Amino acid sequence: MKLLFVASLLVVCLTASAQTSIEPRYTADGELLRPENYREWIFLSSGLGMTYGPAASTNPANPLFDNVFVTPAAYKSFQQTGTWPDKTMFVLEIRSASTKGSINNGGHFQDQVSAVEVEVKDEKRFPNKWAFFGFNGTAASTKSLPTSASCYSCHSTNGAVDNTFVQFYPTLAPIAKAKGTFKTTP
Amino acid sequence: MKLLFVASLLVVCLTASAQTSIEPRYTADGELLRPENYREWIFLSSGLGMTYGPAASTNPANPLFDNVFVTPAAYKSFQQTGTWPDKTMFVLEIRSASTKGSINNGGHFQDQVSAVEVEVKDEKRFPNKWAFFGFNGTAASTKSLPTSASCYSCHSTNGAVDNTFVQFYPTLAPIAKAKGTFKTTP
Repeated sequence: MKLLFVASLLVVCLTASAQTSIEPRYTADGELLRPENYREWIFLSSGLGMTYGPAASTNPANPLFDNVFVTPAAYKSFQQTGTWPDKTMFVLEIRSASTKGSINNGGHFQDQVSAVEVEVKDEKRFPNKWAFFGFNGTAASTKSLPTSASCYSCHSTNGAVDNTFVQFYPTLAPIAKAKGTFKTTP
Repeated sequence: MKLLFVASLLVVCLTASAQTSIEPRYTADGELLRPENYREWIFLSSGLGMTYGPAASTNPANPLFDNVFVTPAAYKSFQQTGTWPDKTMFVLEIRSASTKGSINNGGHFQDQVSAVEVEVKDEKRFPNKWAFFGFNGTAASTKSLPTSASCYSCHSTNGAVDNTFVQFYPTLAPIAKAKGTFKTTP
């Protein structure tokens, strides 16, 4: 009877803590499995039509939203240390923007997903610790983008903390500054 | 020894599940306590400069972001039922928008918090089941807005599901439509 009670507790416990133990998973040939339930991770920020290149290259008439989510355990760790632990995963979810809908008649609200991009820290697997993945359509897995892709050099050069754009995450930038991990970038 | 093990399990278990058992808390005289850690709740969507009134009344040169979060247990329940259980809490976090910062030179990213508004479903406490609260500055608690405030009639008339604007939450609207709880509004 006691054993049954302990076993029941364990089941409840593992179920409850499942959300905080999310790690990257791969196929046998090294493709990243599409992260499940990333909308239940920790939201870091949204932007609309954010542009890093020359302003002339943007399309201000048709801007896109980006939502950034990070794994809950990584978020908890960042709050303590000001940086990211091994197995951290970010999802950048890109959505179309609408203006007219229901009672809304100005500004922009979020509509359909147009892309899901993932950044993973896996120190033993990737030579530069971090790798990037782009999920198109409904692909269940995908291989990492080649290290010649612009995301690698841009994140490495311009990310305020450990390859990530903490300068655009308003709840985390003050923590990194307090912990001395915030790199001032251009 | 066995008892110590069970006790340890219980502590771990309760800690892990704390996130899913968030309920509204009040002072002795009925003010709502400011929700803690709402940034760890479930993110529903963001908008920029969303406008429900006449377009002429907006200030498109200085739009604000709004982020909507809901309590995790309510989100799980909505996925099963297409509506909101008792004790559901929403936070509407309003933030200023910036354009120039770091390498960004176009579009908008999120900056400082300018207001935190809360919508609570507490069936026994509020005559219309739902109530609204506006937290200014760093107030630890606040009383509900009077039912003459425009949020009550606007949510009641125009919210697609049970007093809430599910039509603007892209992951939830399809669930409500499938469950038959989605009310088409103007």
